[in-house]
Amino acid sequence: MTDKTNQQWGGRFSEPTDAFVARFTASVDFDKRLYRHDIQGSIAHAKMLTKVGVLSEQERDDIIRGLEEIRIEIERGQFEWSVALEDVHMNIEAALTKKIGIAGKKLHTGRSRNDQVATDVRLYLRDEVDAILDELSRLQQGLVELAEREADTIMPGFTHLQTAQPVTFGHHLLAWYEMIQRDYERLQDCRKRINILPLGAAALAGTTYPIDRNYTAELLGFERPAYNSLDAVSDRDFAIEFCAAASLLLTHLSRASEELVLWTSAQFNFVNLPDRFCTGSSIMPQKKNPDVPELVRGKTGRVNGNLIALLTLMKSQPLAYNKDNQEDKEPLFDSIDTVKGCVRAFADMVPAIEPKREVMREAALRGFATATDLADYLVRKGMPFRDAHEVVGKSVAYGVQTGKDLSQMTLAELQQFSDTIEQDVFAVLTLEGSVAARDHLGGTAPAQVRAAAARAKAELAERHARTA
Amino acid sequence: MTDKTNQQWGGRFSEPTDAFVARFTASVDFDKRLYRHDIQGSIAHAKMLTKVGVLSEQERDDIIRGLEEIRIEIERGQFEWSVALEDVHMNIEAALTKKIGIAGKKLHTGRSRNDQVATDVRLYLRDEVDAILDELSRLQQGLVELAEREADTIMPGFTHLQTAQPVTFGHHLLAWYEMIQRDYERLQDCRKRINILPLGAAALAGTTYPIDRNYTAELLGFERPAYNSLDAVSDRDFAIEFCAAASLLLTHLSRASEELVLWTSAQFNFVNLPDRFCTGSSIMPQKKNPDVPELVRGKTGRVNGNLIALLTLMKSQPLAYNKDNQEDKEPLFDSIDTVKGCVRAFADMVPAIEPKREVMREAALRGFATATDLADYLVRKGMPFRDAHEVVGKSVAYGVQTGKDLSQMTLAELQQFSDTIEQDVFAVLTLEGSVAARDHLGGTAPAQVRAAAARAKAELAERHARTA
Amino acid sequence: MTDKTNQQWGGRFSEPTDAFVARFTASVDFDKRLYRHDIQGSIAHAKMLTKVGVLSEQERDDIIRGLEEIRIEIERGQFEWSVALEDVHMNIEAALTKKIGIAGKKLHTGRSRNDQVATDVRLYLRDEVDAILDELSRLQQGLVELAEREADTIMPGFTHLQTAQPVTFGHHLLAWYEMIQRDYERLQDCRKRINILPLGAAALAGTTYPIDRNYTAELLGFERPAYNSLDAVSDRDFAIEFCAAASLLLTHLSRASEELVLWTSAQFNFVNLPDRFCTGSSIMPQKKNPDVPELVRGKTGRVNGNLIALLTLMKSQPLAYNKDNQEDKEPLFDSIDTVKGCVRAFADMVPAIEPKREVMREAALRGFATATDLADYLVRKGMPFRDAHEVVGKSVAYGVQTGKDLSQMTLAELQQFSDTIEQDVFAVLTLEGSVAARDHLGGTAPAQVRAAAARAKAELAERHARTA
Amino acid sequence: MTDKTNQQWGGRFSEPTDAFVARFTASVDFDKRLYRHDIQGSIAHAKMLTKVGVLSEQERDDIIRGLEEIRIEIERGQFEWSVALEDVHMNIEAALTKKIGIAGKKLHTGRSRNDQVATDVRLYLRDEVDAILDELSRLQQGLVELAEREADTIMPGFTHLQTAQPVTFGHHLLAWYEMIQRDYERLQDCRKRINILPLGAAALAGTTYPIDRNYTAELLGFERPAYNSLDAVSDRDFAIEFCAAASLLLTHLSRASEELVLWTSAQFNFVNLPDRFCTGSSIMPQKKNPDVPELVRGKTGRVNGNLIALLTLMKSQPLAYNKDNQEDKEPLFDSIDTVKGCVRAFADMVPAIEPKREVMREAALRGFATATDLADYLVRKGMPFRDAHEVVGKSVAYGVQTGKDLSQMTLAELQQFSDTIEQDVFAVLTLEGSVAARDHLGGTAPAQVRAAAARAKAELAERHARTA
Repeated sequence: MTDKTNQQWGGRFSEPTDAFVARFTASVDFDKRLYRHDIQGSIAHAKMLTKVGVLSEQERDDIIRGLEEIRIEIERGQFEWSVALEDVHMNIEAALTKKIGIAGKKLHTGRSRNDQVATDVRLYLRDEVDAILDELSRLQQGLVELAEREADTIMPGFTHLQTAQPVTFGHHLLAWYEMIQRDYERLQDCRKRINILPLGAAALAGTTYPIDRNYTAELLGFERPAYNSLDAVSDRDFAIEFCAAASLLLTHLSRASEELVLWTSAQFNFVNLPDRFCTGSSIMPQKKNPDVPELVRGKTGRVNGNLIALLTLMKSQPLAYNKDNQEDKEPLFDSIDTVKGCVRAFADMVPAIEPKREVMREAALRGFATATDLADYLVRKGMPFRDAHEVVGKSVAYGVQTGKDLSQMTLAELQQFSDTIEQDVFAVLTLEGSVAARDHLGGTAPAQVRAAAARAKAELAERHARTA
Repeated sequence: MTDKTNQQWGGRFSEPTDAFVARFTASVDFDKRLYRHDIQGSIAHAKMLTKVGVLSEQERDDIIRGLEEIRIEIERGQFEWSVALEDVHMNIEAALTKKIGIAGKKLHTGRSRNDQVATDVRLYLRDEVDAILDELSRLQQGLVELAEREADTIMPGFTHLQTAQPVTFGHHLLAWYEMIQRDYERLQDCRKRINILPLGAAALAGTTYPIDRNYTAELLGFERPAYNSLDAVSDRDFAIEFCAAASLLLTHLSRASEELVLWTSAQFNFVNLPDRFCTGSSIMPQKKNPDVPELVRGKTGRVNGNLIALLTLMKSQPLAYNKDNQEDKEPLFDSIDTVKGCVRAFADMVPAIEPKREVMREAALRGFATATDLADYLVRKGMPFRDAHEVVGKSVAYGVQTGKDLSQMTLAELQQFSDTIEQDVFAVLTLEGSVAARDHLGGTAPAQVRAAAARAKAELAERHARTA
Repeated sequence: MTDKTNQQWGGRFSEPTDAFVARFTASVDFDKRLYRHDIQGSIAHAKMLTKVGVLSEQERDDIIRGLEEIRIEIERGQFEWSVALEDVHMNIEAALTKKIGIAGKKLHTGRSRNDQVATDVRLYLRDEVDAILDELSRLQQGLVELAEREADTIMPGFTHLQTAQPVTFGHHLLAWYEMIQRDYERLQDCRKRINILPLGAAALAGTTYPIDRNYTAELLGFERPAYNSLDAVSDRDFAIEFCAAASLLLTHLSRASEELVLWTSAQFNFVNLPDRFCTGSSIMPQKKNPDVPELVRGKTGRVNGNLIALLTLMKSQPLAYNKDNQEDKEPLFDSIDTVKGCVRAFADMVPAIEPKREVMREAALRGFATATDLADYLVRKGMPFRDAHEVVGKSVAYGVQTGKDLSQMTLAELQQFSDTIEQDVFAVLTLEGSVAARDHLGGTAPAQVRAAAARAKAELAERHARTA
Repeated sequence: MTDKTNQQWGGRFSEPTDAFVARFTASVDFDKRLYRHDIQGSIAHAKMLTKVGVLSEQERDDIIRGLEEIRIEIERGQFEWSVALEDVHMNIEAALTKKIGIAGKKLHTGRSRNDQVATDVRLYLRDEVDAILDELSRLQQGLVELAEREADTIMPGFTHLQTAQPVTFGHHLLAWYEMIQRDYERLQDCRKRINILPLGAAALAGTTYPIDRNYTAELLGFERPAYNSLDAVSDRDFAIEFCAAASLLLTHLSRASEELVLWTSAQFNFVNLPDRFCTGSSIMPQKKNPDVPELVRGKTGRVNGNLIALLTLMKSQPLAYNKDNQEDKEPLFDSIDTVKGCVRAFADMVPAIEPKREVMREAALRGFATATDLADYLVRKGMPFRDAHEVVGKSVAYGVQTGKDLSQMTLAELQQFSDTIEQDVFAVLTLEGSVAARDHLGGTAPAQVRAAAARAKAELAERHARTA
């Protein structure tokens, strides 16, 4: 095994690689998932080399045929991966040469593993980002539909996990929608910087062959070639930027998950998750655990860890390529897999959330959720806000003692604290009155929720039309 | 002190805040730097309230006058900050009310500290991002000018910190340029998501006053109001996204710093940094330490730390606002300050880098930098690449033993390894021949470096015209 | 200013430091908090130099007197700090020389700033760790006293935030105690590795003066001198290990904080926090927010960030000292301050937690908390566990439909699912029966809680005797 | 598959788990590596249950026989793992029940997966820590032997990567030894906190069976049972503390790696690494890349990432067990594997490092390494240190201009700067004189290096005797 490895490097070496070192430094176990993009890049490279006269048309066609056979073998599980050949690139190149002879060796003309691997990872990540964007759209669609359906459902809005003011459940769901919308846009921005072609940088300085990088870029759908060869082989920004976007996305899902865990607790009891998204306990027969949101919340850790792994990796590296960079793949792949799994789980789960409207409403009635409305009422009657705040504070203290919400007090009780309060106060102390009054762009009034949902649906429809 | 604090909350509380708790939970020590943007936001809010009829024109004018006096007092160091008033917002509001009476209290109509602080931080960060963008342009200008000057200067290009192939120093500097260019674009993308108005979300649900958020957004130069009030008060993505961009930027500077530290060592000795960017030693009189790049390299740690601080902070927080979020400011401010200081230091230092051209050239002559060129030569003469690699490998092994570079061997010596080698080999073994041959988009050939520098200068000129 | 700075480095420099660079590289703003330990270290160094004959007794006495005057000036706010003198060490040395003349300069014999700063930070951190250990003991004392008082108070125990089995509140508090106990032990282990003397390493290689490092170590209470000078000046493990311990400690407090935030919500309503640990809202008069636990939870972010800052800082640094290391202080200081503040806040707050015993008990009665007990009952009657689990699962499903807890069902209702169930089942379905049955080391039975509290109190008493 | 899964939870569920959810929440793919420790724990549990009368001796013997058969099947690759059975524990339990019938089901009496998994991970980690400790000893042995051999080899000591003072190569290697020594001690401290038995905590509250936890602890070699059941199932400190120790250890290796990369560069050229620890280039035939140190340096990223993953995971989790915690394993396993691989690679590589003594010596002669010695010489002749520093600074500036080291100047040249300099100066300007003069505990003098190596060898011998 190690002898074979060494044959790649030729005459400069006087002893074979240590067997443990060969395993320790090989990457094929994790980079073989790049096979499809490695082949895609090689085919484009072969076409370009033919265009500029380095390969003959026959050689090009042999290469393409050979690579496509290899792809099929890999997909059928018939390809034999060799750790001795270090990585996905050498494995495929060796198989190609075995299959088609000398033309297989010529494929490596004008490129090096340094620019090849950077190209493969960008091609792979670009596809994965596109898949994630589609799943995000599906999640957003589910959110907006549920939000529209629940535009009138009243629940307590919390700050500091204390009841603050009544909001609608639809409004709350659209807050999630907005978070995901930023993730969508951020990934689109990230994709622009992924979509640059490193190939042609060769080892670090470019190549002496008359390559046509614009043509390769065009064949592979890249926006343009990278402008500097040293940068092209050493840049891993695109991986880090994706991992940063993944951390924000999982942070959002962790917040939504935390809320679902709270809401499915016996104490909140705001929503039901269908059994198929939950698991039970081997020892406690009554348990129905919100495993999916819990697990998604926990997975925030690994994507944050992957981000730090890559930032630590790149810190202080002199140009151009260093072996350290082999460590870029596993954290990136893990963040991709995690994001895809978690967004899929949420996109499946959100439409199945069953709000318990009566429980939510009951909860909003407790906790003095309309205290701000009472203060605003007094201000409208001419009382300075600071004094109104004091009156309401005392009313609430009375309510805490007597176990009554503001709307449950009699007029006489309320008038203990201010004789400005009159019979019309009860209109503003209702939940419906409270939410309906917040009727401006971004407010929780059902009319605003419906308008926001309509705008969101139009955005999604337009997006769908654009990407379909 | 604590009594006063308590008076803000009115009748619901039965005992004053604990003195240690008051200090522990106050933020004015670090958030007072927001004073200018807090005042800017308040003035726009007052104008909007006047437009919709909540404030009179007289009240608006009193508020504006009062706030501008306060700003002057703060800038003159005459303002008395009070920890008892918790934060910058309450300090300014209290001073305003003292100055202009009841109208000062009315300013808080239709807003809450939750949306106010989010607005202030966005206004502040937007200004800081603009300042950083300007400094990045200055750094890029310095890089491109130096690169153009050094387009013909040959140095060894490294991979694995081993001599790989000759490159030009100008080409290397343009690799730094490309990194910074991505930072520039990334911050522009981040700025779009900063530039959204939270004001009008009030505590979490919007307000019952007839506010006009589009008007406020327009007054403050925001692109649009946030679409969802719950999201508007709980979103801290903009701070995290900035901190992620800061980590990438410092990672780039850490790489350039590492190279400067290497290059100023006695062993490399590639460049000189003027004394004014270095410091000496209190004990070793001969020392001239590259303190600025070392310190910048070290500061990568704190910006990575700030990023993790914010991601950890937001993980699993239920909506809407929680007190945890007070912790968002110090990491953000520290990353802003660090980025500004480091980019300024680099922008000052880069034009002063003095390359030692002869030393660089000497280094490139050693280390078999043109070995790839010899292999390419053999391939052009018809030898399969794999065989050529073997021939060159043996030549290098011979050179290691005898202490000779390839270009220092006689033809007879070279022909030991292959009789395909002829007299014309020495043209490709020169440094000039090697770099000139990599003459395609992104390659290290001096002609390409000049073209890349010209393109970069044009970009910077256009950018300057656009932002001036 | 810069001229003066430059005079420290003497004849090797041809131009003064750039003014911005001087500010950018100075550390006195944050390292001046080390003044007391810098003076402590210097006095020990002077005594050692006198013992080995480098200083005269008169010089030693002048130095000690001068340094003590400087300490008093600093503590009275009369000392004038100069950024031009870079750091706390140079500021104090310059003031000493001004005060006592030539002997002041001699103090620096046989040491360098590299070993001096490492010594100062270790002395400082050792004191801070001791202060933190004391506060942890106070927190543990509060926990164990409250636990003992609440040994019989029944609440629902949660897994997945779903009601799992009844536990006692005292038992829950002792889980917090155990977390803190590990923090205590971890900090003690960390302290061993802090308590090593770097002084004598000089710049990196040791000194040519006949120093006696064992004597200095003894004077300063260090366990021993560091064994290797290169390691002594470049090691920052002690700071990182402390920051890692701080992250675990804050993680524990974040978990307890999360529980307090949940428990003070209207939905849980398990405990009351006295008003003095809470704050109100400027806009919502009814709010009483658990600010202290929220803020502590949020501060977990910054200590995790500090840990990453230091790990990133040290990654890949070649020996021995590099300027990067100046960046070690701010993260360390911030973690120290954060830990001290948060532990103090908890130690103050825990004794004031007011459990609402009836609400807790009510909650435990709901949620089928005794389902496991029913399964165990059936197993004891001879039914295989898997079958018992099925019977209980069906009973619970019936309870969900009918809104009845297991203990609220009639015998006939229960017997629908298994006729093995008899009248004696109701004994095991009580909360008291359930908790009392878990009567082994570590179990939740009140007897075990009392035993655990007694053991903890004995540990604390012994610790107090040892450290007093 | 999902149907089967559901059968574990019985009658409470009305629909099967979603197929994607089943895969998303299963852990068997990564937790099956715990099989040996799961079986070890189960055997001890069975013995304990027999001792307290819950199982018969026959049942115990059947269980033990069945589990040992399963272990053999797993190790022979004959065991069929099922994702439907979620995790390693359910897979083994199901296989056991299939093999021995009803007794297999009884094994789960008095425990739950929550305490079982915590026990398994602690047993596993304890073994891995012991393996790592052994490898660390091997690495230390290699370091001390090389250090002893190179006690007289002189190289430049660096600060700021600038030549500072001459040191011996043996001294430098012992700095690495000291770092590793701290890692050794830190892992020993960590092991104490790993070595606590969670079993008996059951789901969260303990069990109603009369278990004997001290007996189980004794059987498994644990120091004691955990004192609190809620803490026992929710504590993951041991994993985080290990990951923090791993980060420090890799940080140390990253620093040594950085130095090896520098030292094998053409510019430093201080050491040779045998070919078997290096790899070549597919395109540049002359390359011999220090892949092993580069890769180790890069792997620092992933262990830092794993640490953050676990800290993020645990932040804010309410007690007791949450599904999030399933995410604890992969980061922990990855840090274990990484540490083991990297320490092994270093332990193999260090004895093979070939110093190039002449090159090191030459480098020390350049760079004015003995400038401090000249200053000390002048001080000994009575010149104040500050003045001596100035004289040496000017001499160095002269040397920079003329390209001469201090020891290469004539006496007349040196006397230009001070006539205090006499012929005897050349003794202190030699490298041997410089290093020999730093002759105190921790100094670089060869005698001190030999003494330090002797002490280290004695420590290792004693350690070996203790653990053998």
